[in-house]
Amino acid sequence: MNSEASYADWIAVDWGTSQVRAWAMRNAKPVAEAQSDQGMGTLAKDAFEAALLALIEPWLGAQRITVVACGMVGARQGWAEARYADVPCSPVSQSQTQPHVRDARLDVHILPGLCQRTPADVMRGEETQIAGFLAQNPGFDGVICLPGTHTKWAQISAGEVISFRTFMTGEFFALLSKSSVLRHSLAKGWDEDAFAQAISDGLSKPEAMASRFFSLRAESLLADLDGATATARLSGLLLGAELAAARPYWLGQRVALIGNATLSAHYTTALGLQGVAAETADATEVTLAGLRAAYEQIKEHVS
Amino acid sequence: MNSEASYADWIAVDWGTSQVRAWAMRNAKPVAEAQSDQGMGTLAKDAFEAALLALIEPWLGAQRITVVACGMVGARQGWAEARYADVPCSPVSQSQTQPHVRDARLDVHILPGLCQRTPADVMRGEETQIAGFLAQNPGFDGVICLPGTHTKWAQISAGEVISFRTFMTGEFFALLSKSSVLRHSLAKGWDEDAFAQAISDGLSKPEAMASRFFSLRAESLLADLDGATATARLSGLLLGAELAAARPYWLGQRVALIGNATLSAHYTTALGLQGVAAETADATEVTLAGLRAAYEQIKEHVS
Repeated sequence: MNSEASYADWIAVDWGTSQVRAWAMRNAKPVAEAQSDQGMGTLAKDAFEAALLALIEPWLGAQRITVVACGMVGARQGWAEARYADVPCSPVSQSQTQPHVRDARLDVHILPGLCQRTPADVMRGEETQIAGFLAQNPGFDGVICLPGTHTKWAQISAGEVISFRTFMTGEFFALLSKSSVLRHSLAKGWDEDAFAQAISDGLSKPEAMASRFFSLRAESLLADLDGATATARLSGLLLGAELAAARPYWLGQRVALIGNATLSAHYTTALGLQGVAAETADATEVTLAGLRAAYEQIKEHVS
Repeated sequence: MNSEASYADWIAVDWGTSQVRAWAMRNAKPVAEAQSDQGMGTLAKDAFEAALLALIEPWLGAQRITVVACGMVGARQGWAEARYADVPCSPVSQSQTQPHVRDARLDVHILPGLCQRTPADVMRGEETQIAGFLAQNPGFDGVICLPGTHTKWAQISAGEVISFRTFMTGEFFALLSKSSVLRHSLAKGWDEDAFAQAISDGLSKPEAMASRFFSLRAESLLADLDGATATARLSGLLLGAELAAARPYWLGQRVALIGNATLSAHYTTALGLQGVAAETADATEVTLAGLRAAYEQIKEHVS
C-alpha cells in the first residue's frame, strides 16, 4: 500500500500511553499504516514531532497535510494539553488543540477527551471510538462499553455522551496475575464454566467480593486447583465486581461493545448470562471512523 | 543482652517470606534477639540451616538446644513442609515437623499452619500469634483480626480456631499505590476524615466498590485532589470492602487486633466507626507467647 500513500488526503493518529498508530487516509479509507512503541508515556514534550515524523514521513508530499490525533497525546504530560470537554456533550468536540510544530508540512490537531465532574471521571481516546461508532450507527440510543486496561461504560442519548464510569478491571487483573501472591496459582488457559460461576458469585453477593481472591491461592495449595481454572475464576470475579457496580449501565439497556476480540468475547459472555445480548464493533474501525468525523469537522470549520 | 545469651534454654524463630527473627529465650523471656532478610522466599531448601546458624550461632553452647520456628519456613517451598492442621482445632498443634540438620547442636521444630477446606483458606504464622494471644487471655471467646499484607479474621471459641478468612487488602493497597495508574495521584500523609468517609461508602454500598478507584485518579486530574487525601481514601475503600465481606466476623462480636501499630490503629478506627471497640495486642509479644506455648508442649512430649 505504501507506494500510493503520498496521495493521502490526511493522516489519522491514535496515540496512546504505550503505543502510537498512524494511517494515511484517502477518500475516507486507510491506504497505508504504521505503528511504533513511542507512546505518550515514553516521550518528553519536545520529542513528539520527531516520533510522528518517524512514522509518517514516507507519506508526506510538498503540500501541508492535516494530522488528526486522539488519545493520551493530549494529556497534560503529552504533546500539548487538549482540555477535557464536560459531559453531557457530543463525543466529537469543536475545540481541538494545535501543538506548535517546526515542520511546515504538518497541521496537527489533537482531540480533547471527556470529563465528568460527579462522580469524577475522565477518558481520552475512547470518546473518538464512541464518535466513530455513532457515525456508523446514527440514532444509537443506549450504552457503549469499551473493555480494556481501564474499561469505560458510557450512556449515549441523542448523539451525546450523557454519563460514564471507568473500571480498572484490566489493570487489576494484570497486577494480581503478574505481581501478587496469586501469580503462583495461575496458568495460561481458560475454563468457561469457572468464569461463568465466578461472575454469578460476584453479582449475587458483591459484598463478599474481597474475601474470594485469596481462596484461589488456598485452593491451589489444598486441592491442586488447576491454573487455567484459577485464571478464569479471577477474571470472572473481577468482571462480576465490575458488572455489580455497572448494573445501571447494562440492566435493561441496549449495549454495544468496542474492544479487542478476546476481551469483548468475555464481556459478551458475561452480559449474555445476565440476559443482555450485546452488539460488537471493531475497535480499529470505529477509531478511524471517529478520527474521520473529527477531520470532516475541521475541514468544514476551515472552508 | 548478648553476653548472657549462651545461657538460653531454647530459641524462638519467626520465619516469614521476606524476613526472619530469632530470640534466645531463658525463663520464658527473650534475652537476645537477631534478625535478617533471609526470609523463606530468598532461600533454597538446603540454605535454611546456614541462614539460621548465621543468626543464632553466638547463642549456642555445647548442649543440644531446641529451636521452635513458625511461619512460611514450613511451607512446601520452605525448609521442610509442616502440613496444615484442619480447623476447627487448637492453634498449637501436636505435630511439628523436624527438618534434617547437619549441626548436632540443633533440634529444630517447625510449627504447622492452619487450613480450612470450605471456603478454602490457609494461614502460616498467624496461628502461633493466636495461640500466644489465647495463652495470655485464657477463655477468650470472639474474633481475632490480624491485619497485614494478607489480613486474617479468625473466629475463636473454647480455645479453638473455628473458622477464618484471608483478605489481600494490604497487598492490594501496595500494588495499587505503587504499580497502578493511581500512583500518580497518591502522596505520603493521611486524612482521617477522607478515610472514615471512604470506609462508610464501602460499607453502605459495597456493590459500587469497583467504580470508586479510578475516581481518585480523575479527581486528582480535574480537581487537584490532595495526594494524602487520595491515599487515605484508597486505604478506606479497600478496608471498607474488607469490612463488608468480613461483617459476620465483627458484627456484634468481641474483637481483638494483633498487628503493627499503624495498621492496627486504622482497623481500630474503622471498627470503632461501626460501634465495635476492639482490643489490641502487640504482635511480637503474642508471637513469642505462641512459640513458648509450643515449646512447652514439645518439652512435655519429650519428658
